[in-house]
Amino acid sequence: MKSSPSSAGSPNSAAPGPSLSLPLVAETRVRYAETDQMGVAHHRHHFVWFEVGRTEFARRYGFPYVEIEDRGLRLVVVEAACRYRRPLRYDDVVLIHVGLGEVSARKVVFEYRLIRQADGELVATGRTVHIVTDPQGRASSLPEDVLVRIQAAAART
Amino acid sequence: MKSSPSSAGSPNSAAPGPSLSLPLVAETRVRYAETDQMGVAHHRHHFVWFEVGRTEFARRYGFPYVEIEDRGLRLVVVEAACRYRRPLRYDDVVLIHVGLGEVSARKVVFEYRLIRQADGELVATGRTVHIVTDPQGRASSLPEDVLVRIQAAAART
Amino acid sequence: MKSSPSSAGSPNSAAPGPSLSLPLVAETRVRYAETDQMGVAHHRHHFVWFEVGRTEFARRYGFPYVEIEDRGLRLVVVEAACRYRRPLRYDDVVLIHVGLGEVSARKVVFEYRLIRQADGELVATGRTVHIVTDPQGRASSLPEDVLVRIQAAAART
Amino acid sequence: MKSSPSSAGSPNSAAPGPSLSLPLVAETRVRYAETDQMGVAHHRHHFVWFEVGRTEFARRYGFPYVEIEDRGLRLVVVEAACRYRRPLRYDDVVLIHVGLGEVSARKVVFEYRLIRQADGELVATGRTVHIVTDPQGRASSLPEDVLVRIQAAAART
Repeated sequence: MKSSPSSAGSPNSAAPGPSLSLPLVAETRVRYAETDQMGVAHHRHHFVWFEVGRTEFARRYGFPYVEIEDRGLRLVVVEAACRYRRPLRYDDVVLIHVGLGEVSARKVVFEYRLIRQADGELVATGRTVHIVTDPQGRASSLPEDVLVRIQAAAART
Repeated sequence: MKSSPSSAGSPNSAAPGPSLSLPLVAETRVRYAETDQMGVAHHRHHFVWFEVGRTEFARRYGFPYVEIEDRGLRLVVVEAACRYRRPLRYDDVVLIHVGLGEVSARKVVFEYRLIRQADGELVATGRTVHIVTDPQGRASSLPEDVLVRIQAAAART
Repeated sequence: MKSSPSSAGSPNSAAPGPSLSLPLVAETRVRYAETDQMGVAHHRHHFVWFEVGRTEFARRYGFPYVEIEDRGLRLVVVEAACRYRRPLRYDDVVLIHVGLGEVSARKVVFEYRLIRQADGELVATGRTVHIVTDPQGRASSLPEDVLVRIQAAAART
Repeated sequence: MKSSPSSAGSPNSAAPGPSLSLPLVAETRVRYAETDQMGVAHHRHHFVWFEVGRTEFARRYGFPYVEIEDRGLRLVVVEAACRYRRPLRYDDVVLIHVGLGEVSARKVVFEYRLIRQADGELVATGRTVHIVTDPQGRASSLPEDVLVRIQAAAART
């Protein structure tokens, strides 16, 4: 998914357009602690579920985030967006689909789709943009071998 | 701030363009619990701080959110976006500036700027879009008297 | 585990003494969002994992919490305690063991043990005490059929 | 509050007995994000408010936690307990009272009382036990000058 017309046109778009086929990488069940007094999952948790998906995506496609941090790099979130289409309730099982948008040595874009398992409905779409830094937060870049693995993942999703 | 060229052009833009003058409505101090192992505030909390600001903005401009819920209405988040410009650390004091974008009986847009008190630096900008529903999540609309108060707030910010 | 000498003697004890055999009911992986700047899982999340375990325990032993709420009852937490023995880190898999302490129509006590999957080490023990209320928070009691199922679970764990 | 009969007798007690006069050090307003579908603040947040109080207590009494971490020490939570007496709702203002229990170079105990501002009701009491470690989590001890300041705070509360 190297080129995404919709995300090219609107850089913060939470609607990942052509990402209908993002791979399923994780699932989670809505925790009681994640509900609010509206009786639905509070909107901040979708970003946590995106992150859970990012962790599993990276592990599955050969660039575990633990390894990236061990090599002295951080993927710092510089933009995050979510479009909420349907509410999620306590105990709902959520399928987390993740893919890659733009990938370079200095910047990686992830895209997300959350699906409610019970009925297959799309509940949210999202997008996070990450820059590569050192542990002190200074701009850095991915080593070639990691970049190659992320690009390979992007080519396969 | 009724018309925002930048947000008109890119509907999910987290950069509220002309919102330089959003009023300061609340402040918060970064909690230890809000940090992550990067040593900075985790990116989900900015959405909580936006919400804290929204609560105070609504109270200050005459439409307390508690009253809106008591009248059987909900302002459900359907889009949320944040652009992160600088990290926040434990114990930093954050100034929360909030303003209104588009306002109608069915939809309200809020915009945000977070400022680090110590040095006045802009740390994040954001935007949330809310639709009006009943407690069961069905589309509804604001009663005239509430709409008038929100529009007055929009005119003053 | 109907009688627990240690919890009888010290009502807030986080050490469930004879609960060595609490059944494994759920597992979770430490999320990046759950770490803090010490580089370990923040201590509030253990209570969320206990709750995740409680949900799965109740489902497995025939009294799903969703059903309890649907019947107009709440199990409100009136005491919670945790003893932290070892730190948990990002991406660690945590095994959640749950059992019952005292059970009556008005009050239910749960006990917990968290085990780190990688090395089998005990990382935390805990205990929560719940009273039965109606949705308005007034003291209530469990219907006979639910109480019987919880007592049966207590007898089996 | 150097000696506490109740905490001596039951080491995990969440009821700080003689702590009726714990000083008020911070206040917070219940955030929407902190509610759950019962319509009240979820019980994990009380531990975050205790931590907010701990930060302010330490600042006020001359041993800011930021300074402790800068000197290479951590106060790691090894026990946490809370007794919940009344529910807190969205937008309630909570007064956070904090005091010290046992203090030594290797271990510090904090006690807490949360009061609802609107009616002065006690909503929760709690207790956390901390050991002193280095950044790698190995047992350590407080330098004399810090210990003296904490003991002075204990004598004054």
